[in-house]
Amino acid sequence: MAKDFYGDLKLGILGGGQLGRMMIQEAINFNVNIHVLDPDKNAPCRLLCNKFECGSLSDFDTVYNFGKDLDLITIEIEKVNVDALEKLEQEGVQVFPQSRVIRLIQDKGMQKQFFKQNDIPTSAFQLISSKDNLQNTSIAYPFIQKLRKDGYDGKGVKRLNSPLDIPEAFAEPSIVEELVDFEKEIAVIVARNDKGDVKTFPMVEMEFNPVVNLVEFLISPSTYSEEIQQKAEEIAKKIACDLQIVGLLAVEMFLTKSGDILVNELAPRPHNSGHQTIEGNAVSQFAQHLRAIFNLPLGDTSTRQHAVMINLLGEDGFEGLAKYEGVEEILSIDGVYVHLYGKKYTKPFRKMGHICIINENRELAITNARKVQEIIKVKA
Amino acid sequence: MAKDFYGDLKLGILGGGQLGRMMIQEAINFNVNIHVLDPDKNAPCRLLCNKFECGSLSDFDTVYNFGKDLDLITIEIEKVNVDALEKLEQEGVQVFPQSRVIRLIQDKGMQKQFFKQNDIPTSAFQLISSKDNLQNTSIAYPFIQKLRKDGYDGKGVKRLNSPLDIPEAFAEPSIVEELVDFEKEIAVIVARNDKGDVKTFPMVEMEFNPVVNLVEFLISPSTYSEEIQQKAEEIAKKIACDLQIVGLLAVEMFLTKSGDILVNELAPRPHNSGHQTIEGNAVSQFAQHLRAIFNLPLGDTSTRQHAVMINLLGEDGFEGLAKYEGVEEILSIDGVYVHLYGKKYTKPFRKMGHICIINENRELAITNARKVQEIIKVKA
Repeated sequence: MAKDFYGDLKLGILGGGQLGRMMIQEAINFNVNIHVLDPDKNAPCRLLCNKFECGSLSDFDTVYNFGKDLDLITIEIEKVNVDALEKLEQEGVQVFPQSRVIRLIQDKGMQKQFFKQNDIPTSAFQLISSKDNLQNTSIAYPFIQKLRKDGYDGKGVKRLNSPLDIPEAFAEPSIVEELVDFEKEIAVIVARNDKGDVKTFPMVEMEFNPVVNLVEFLISPSTYSEEIQQKAEEIAKKIACDLQIVGLLAVEMFLTKSGDILVNELAPRPHNSGHQTIEGNAVSQFAQHLRAIFNLPLGDTSTRQHAVMINLLGEDGFEGLAKYEGVEEILSIDGVYVHLYGKKYTKPFRKMGHICIINENRELAITNARKVQEIIKVKA
Repeated sequence: MAKDFYGDLKLGILGGGQLGRMMIQEAINFNVNIHVLDPDKNAPCRLLCNKFECGSLSDFDTVYNFGKDLDLITIEIEKVNVDALEKLEQEGVQVFPQSRVIRLIQDKGMQKQFFKQNDIPTSAFQLISSKDNLQNTSIAYPFIQKLRKDGYDGKGVKRLNSPLDIPEAFAEPSIVEELVDFEKEIAVIVARNDKGDVKTFPMVEMEFNPVVNLVEFLISPSTYSEEIQQKAEEIAKKIACDLQIVGLLAVEMFLTKSGDILVNELAPRPHNSGHQTIEGNAVSQFAQHLRAIFNLPLGDTSTRQHAVMINLLGEDGFEGLAKYEGVEEILSIDGVYVHLYGKKYTKPFRKMGHICIINENRELAITNARKVQEIIKVKA
């Protein structure tokens, strides 16, 4: 970076949630001035930055005015006004990831087309502009319908089992995707800086709980064969290079029962599937993101110990001022690290924090994670 | 802790320097509300807390008023108004470390008497109230004279070689100490919570540079025999128990050429000799301090890898707005972690940050530390 930046550089973060919060914990080491924009006046970052601005991330003027005196802008959520970012880029503000990358990733249809154009393996799909299109898709039932924009954490996704489900389908622009009969959901986080250096974190696995039908644990590193891991990491690197992204890119993938890898979705920022890097890897995803956007040498991503990450979700049936139960008890287990996100209010399944469980032994890490999961609760 | 504290608890930190800053980086994970008092309006913590108050740490009213609405107060510097803390304790505010511990440690004479009363090995000494006392001390020349109060980082310490040096001696209340012909300076950090649980970090060594006559590196863990390490750790534990301190205690010691250990000084807080725990140990000294003062189970202190810590000092001959040279270059070495302290202005030998160098191989960690030391500079 041309600018002498330790101490002077003004870094703006669009979004003031937990990802921004953990980014700030790391950015403190770099002496940068941090400005945060978030619509929630109680956002987790509100008290940890040089300037916190409460405002809409999707409003052109708000984003433009927030950014115009900054040196560098990054995001912790991709639902932001990209036109404002594009104008800021034209006026000389650095925006990493670049506005064109955010624009592409905001739209799941464009993501899919990008995969196709770049020979990146992904499930068969079709773009849908209205419910009428659903009558004659090329994709066989059952299939998945996803809204092209604004879906997250399972929202904006439906399974259609037969034409009888069409009345319940989304009417907005969407994609339909072949249902993948996967063996495992996997993810690779990759970083790229402006010099073009690219580095991946080791592949991780999501452990699914069939009873509650949810991803329960994230486990790092994977125990799949070296070949599969390498293939997943190569795909992530290729995407980062094809996009020429600057910053972090989380690549969520399916490992199919036949051993193929299909890319599911991208997130151009630190990601839930990389939280365990804080304790489990030589550098964390947050440190790596900062190194990438500051155009510094990328850090060592190697795994130090087995890590299991659990999201700490608001307990079902509780809404209001958050109360945490069991923190003291889980901290008596060695290798348990608690990260609370500073959210004042809980609601069912809201991400209130995460717990990372580290151990030299993979099975012991998983056993401890199960214990932790039974003990800790967020109520109101 | 009786109070349901995640989110509600108001934690006050007396002092807003780098130790407070690193404590906050860790405290973010616990959701506590942080209030900081520091006389410098540009203090490193100023932008990282719920409330920053600029004021004197040694003024009774300032400290009392700062603390009276808080739940828990801790320190990152021991030069604070202890009378105010004592009154706050009487009124029900928790103060950890306790005011009586801070009062004792503030006075090097009382520290020495405490060692003597509790059979803690330390060098021979004598309390001195005026220069006249120096004429007939029981300690043989050459000896060390230390001010009883307010010395730090080598300030307030003089070597007297013969009675001819008396005119240059300190006139204030002081101690004279036998000069210890030590083999190595060592340190152990110990934590104790209010339940009485006690845990030490592994013993560390200071590597002295005879050319510049300064401690150059801190190396963790030590390579001395198990017996010596255990002895040092037992001494640290005994002191924590004798003091009944709640919080962290850094115990600086001399290992003599005959293999004895003599306690030099105490610091009742996170300490420069524990910075390498951030990357080098399972929990950091900052996390451990918070666990101790929150009365949570103490964390696993075991060493993960060899660590060398270098203080990043303001270059001699430069004063003014700090400029950092070489950060990019040292970050290209794997296992190098930079911590800048957010200080706007540099001056010769001011602590501006620290670098931690981690490696599986001790010699390689030291080699890399030497490289880092040659490259990085803080100028103006």
